[in-house]
Amino acid sequence: MVNITQFANAKITAFVQLTNIFVKYYYYYLMNLIIVGTVAFDAIETPFGKTDKIIGGAATYISLAASYFTAGAGVVSAVGGDFPREYISLLNDHGVNTDGLEIREKEKSFFWSGRYNADMNSRETLTTELNVIDGFKPVIPGSYQGADLLMLGNLSPDIQISVIEQLTTRPKLIVLDTMNFWIENTPADLKRVISMVDVLTINDSEARELSGEYSLVRAARKIMDMGPEFLIIKKGENGALLFSGSRMFFAAALPLEEVFDPTGAGDSFAGGFIGYIARTGDVSFENMKTAIITGSAMASFCVEKFGTANLVNLSKASIYNRIQQFSELVRFTDIDIT
Amino acid sequence: MVNITQFANAKITAFVQLTNIFVKYYYYYLMNLIIVGTVAFDAIETPFGKTDKIIGGAATYISLAASYFTAGAGVVSAVGGDFPREYISLLNDHGVNTDGLEIREKEKSFFWSGRYNADMNSRETLTTELNVIDGFKPVIPGSYQGADLLMLGNLSPDIQISVIEQLTTRPKLIVLDTMNFWIENTPADLKRVISMVDVLTINDSEARELSGEYSLVRAARKIMDMGPEFLIIKKGENGALLFSGSRMFFAAALPLEEVFDPTGAGDSFAGGFIGYIARTGDVSFENMKTAIITGSAMASFCVEKFGTANLVNLSKASIYNRIQQFSELVRFTDIDIT
Repeated sequence: MVNITQFANAKITAFVQLTNIFVKYYYYYLMNLIIVGTVAFDAIETPFGKTDKIIGGAATYISLAASYFTAGAGVVSAVGGDFPREYISLLNDHGVNTDGLEIREKEKSFFWSGRYNADMNSRETLTTELNVIDGFKPVIPGSYQGADLLMLGNLSPDIQISVIEQLTTRPKLIVLDTMNFWIENTPADLKRVISMVDVLTINDSEARELSGEYSLVRAARKIMDMGPEFLIIKKGENGALLFSGSRMFFAAALPLEEVFDPTGAGDSFAGGFIGYIARTGDVSFENMKTAIITGSAMASFCVEKFGTANLVNLSKASIYNRIQQFSELVRFTDIDIT
Repeated sequence: MVNITQFANAKITAFVQLTNIFVKYYYYYLMNLIIVGTVAFDAIETPFGKTDKIIGGAATYISLAASYFTAGAGVVSAVGGDFPREYISLLNDHGVNTDGLEIREKEKSFFWSGRYNADMNSRETLTTELNVIDGFKPVIPGSYQGADLLMLGNLSPDIQISVIEQLTTRPKLIVLDTMNFWIENTPADLKRVISMVDVLTINDSEARELSGEYSLVRAARKIMDMGPEFLIIKKGENGALLFSGSRMFFAAALPLEEVFDPTGAGDSFAGGFIGYIARTGDVSFENMKTAIITGSAMASFCVEKFGTANLVNLSKASIYNRIQQFSELVRFTDIDIT
């Protein structure tokens, strides 16, 4: 027979559990992540085949990858009248808010096409048509204000700055992605936006270019001196490094049987990273490690099929299993040299 | 007061402890690892400076690195009369047996000189004088027979085969290192020796060249089909992969503030790897993971100074601490996506 104290304890336990579930789901559905970047058309050619114009763009990959971890993401971008409504529905079906996606009926969407070489590590750009992104002035919807997290996908630094300046309260964490084009063409604007953010993500050659240092440890120190508390250096098939102060973490990339199309890998990485931060609400170095592994897992899914084909249809179980593979890949028994 | 049973238990415990210590040290000092490779002169030029002729060669780096883990290593190689006796004493001082190091007074030692480019990732060979290694026919001393482990450093495949064929009992584990030169120039001999060994270590571009596959996962499968149960693919500053059957392990390289001289890094890696196997006597996949981390640690020490300068003077504590850094570099908290 259950006595009074046991009964009271059971009630308290049940209450605590329900509260936890409530907080978890409240947080999950709260609009707490703003994603800025292109929503666009891509046409891709690889040694395995080629696509017509398909949905692409940094904000597309970021928000699809993040959507598996939070229902509180909203996109800021612009598309032309030529952009199929079902592509927008695709984002909405993944729980992504598109209040901040401006549709300019009379203009054309951003379009990029490129061809990958046989090793899949290098590519040439065949076409870049800025179209609606040329002179784009983002407007942040009122419903987005107060978000905890801001993910600035690769775009011109002045657009990225304009977004930060429109926010009425500074997010708890601002993550910036950029690329060599801005390092070379708008260095002053780029340095300004870098000084405004908490996390910068760039690849290894860009880190070297930006810092003038070959050693990534030295490059990281110089770049963090420019402002960001955290720096993520992406090395493609060779993994990613997280730096903060004197701390360092390395996330291996999972060696894959076949890389089918690398397009969007970096953005899927960013999406998995910021999505996991959004889910956990934890911006500590320790939690960022797991977030980077999550990002690496999303990137590994991305490259297995053309464009977003693999990203749109993942199960929680497959994501969990993939992350376990990352965990097992680097696990070893401690040394005994006593 | 101690009663009889306690006293008996204490005696048994002491006996077991002493036996363990005896077994450990017996094993430690047992001649159980044969290292084959060049013992030679190197002259190195890097952006940080240049050296005169200093001690080098695969077997030198391998045995110095291994010496921190076992006192049971012996070298098989040949040097000329020009080779300073203090260089040989250096190996002996590290507990390395040199019964198998032939001194041909009338010949000259193998000599290599090279220059590293600014990025330290590529180098050009300025001189290669085979000298005493040209036509070298290794003779295995009787004292080396019965060794558990054979480490074949980079040399021509026919020399490597001749060593295997001279052993009266097949070692428990044969590890083979090779390079692109032999893939291109003596492919038949190379394939023959590959078919005779348990572990092959090569770098990523060599794995691609040898297998004709770009994907390292596919390349690994093809190479293991040639014979070896284990394959280690070295990726320099991007770490190393261990494959066996469908199992895979990745060892990150520790990002370093400064790489001073990469000469001998691959051989130090091999030395730390085989040294740890010699110490533990365990050739399982699980133990090889820790052995690879140990090898990576020894390589990271090697590149911090010119030639063998850093390898000759390490403490057990510094090695242990370095390995802890490798462990911390990749450790992360498990994901929670329930």
